[in-house]
Amino acid sequence: MNTAVVPFPLVAATPRAWVDAAALRLPELLLDHASCEKKAASTAIALMFSYAEDRPLATRLSRLAREELRHFEQVDALIRELGIEHIRLGPGRYAANLRRAARAAEPSRKLDLLLLSALIEARSCERFRLLAPALAGPVAHLYASLEVSEARHFEIYLGFAEKHARRHGDLAWRSRLEDLAELEGRLATEPDPQFRFHSGPPTASTAP
Amino acid sequence: MNTAVVPFPLVAATPRAWVDAAALRLPELLLDHASCEKKAASTAIALMFSYAEDRPLATRLSRLAREELRHFEQVDALIRELGIEHIRLGPGRYAANLRRAARAAEPSRKLDLLLLSALIEARSCERFRLLAPALAGPVAHLYASLEVSEARHFEIYLGFAEKHARRHGDLAWRSRLEDLAELEGRLATEPDPQFRFHSGPPTASTAP
Repeated sequence: MNTAVVPFPLVAATPRAWVDAAALRLPELLLDHASCEKKAASTAIALMFSYAEDRPLATRLSRLAREELRHFEQVDALIRELGIEHIRLGPGRYAANLRRAARAAEPSRKLDLLLLSALIEARSCERFRLLAPALAGPVAHLYASLEVSEARHFEIYLGFAEKHARRHGDLAWRSRLEDLAELEGRLATEPDPQFRFHSGPPTASTAP
Repeated sequence: MNTAVVPFPLVAATPRAWVDAAALRLPELLLDHASCEKKAASTAIALMFSYAEDRPLATRLSRLAREELRHFEQVDALIRELGIEHIRLGPGRYAANLRRAARAAEPSRKLDLLLLSALIEARSCERFRLLAPALAGPVAHLYASLEVSEARHFEIYLGFAEKHARRHGDLAWRSRLEDLAELEGRLATEPDPQFRFHSGPPTASTAP
C-alpha cells in the first residue's frame, strides 16, 4: 500500500513510477487523456439516457458533459500545438475492468455506475495534481487548470450515489464504495503492460 | 409531394398536419425533443470516437455536441417550468430507419453518417421554424431561438461530407445525398402511427 496522501474516495495513491513514465510518454499521455475526456462526456450522456426520469441527474450531467467536451477541446488544441501525430491507442484495462464490476440489476446498477464514475473522476483529479508539477510549460499549465475545474466532478457523482442509496434504503452503499475503490486502486497501482492516463505503472515489458 | 418551400438539402416539406398535431401534443413534443438533443450530442461524440484521426471533425463536433447539450438543458428547463411529467417514449421509426441506410464499408460509411446527420439537423431546423409561430409563449420563444442557433449544424455536417467525398474521389456523393434525402422525406411526411419530433403526420390510429 502506498503511504502518500490519498484523496477520498480513493484508497491507493498513484505510484511515482507512473508519473515518471508519463513525463517520458507525453504523446501517449495527451492522446489517451483526450480520449478519456470524450469518454467521460459519453458516459455522462449514457447515464442521462438510462435514467432520463431522474431529472436533477440529467440536468447536472449535461453540464458536466459539456465541461468534459470543453476539456477535450483544450487537450486537443495542445496536442496540435505540440505537433503530436495521432496514434490510435487500444483500450487499457482500467475502464473495462471497472465497467465489468457494475451489478446488472437495478437499483444496484445505478448505484454502481455512479460510484464508478466518482472513482474515475477522483483518479483523474489526483493525476492532474501529480502531473502539473512534473511536466513543463503549457502541459503543466493545462493540468493545473484542469485540476481546479474537474475537482468537483467526483463529488457530484458521489452526491447522486448517496441520494440514490438513501432513496432505496441501501445502508451498505459505503461498503460498496470501499469495495469498488479497492478494485480501482489495484488497477491504478499494479504494474501494467500498457501505459495509459489511468493505467498502473509500467512493467518491465511495457512497450516504450 | 408537398409544394411548400423546402430548405436544402431536404426534398419534402413537413405536412401541416404534423404541425397541428404538435400543438395538441406539447408534452410529447417537448419530451421527445429533449431526447433528440441528447441523441444529437451522443451521435456527434460517437463520430468523434469512430473518426478520431480526423481532428478538424472532432474539434468541430465537440463544440456542436456542447451546443446540443445546452439546448437539452433549455428544453428540460422549459419542461419543468410547464410542470410536464416525465413519460418514457419508445423510439420512433425515423432515426432507426435512417441509421439502417448507412453503408457498412468505409469510406462510404463515414460519408453516409455525415449526410444522415446533415439531413436530421436540417429537418430539426425546418421544424423549429414551423413550430415557433404555431405555439404560444415560452415554447414559441424557445423554438425561435433554437432555429437561429441550430441553423448552421446541417451545413457543418454537409461541409465535412463534401470534404470527405472529395478526398476519396467520390463523384457520386451528391446523388447519394439525394437518395438519402428521398428516404428522409418519406419518413418525415408519410402517415406515422407514433407522434414524435421527427415523425410523419399522425395516422387515424396514432395513439392520442
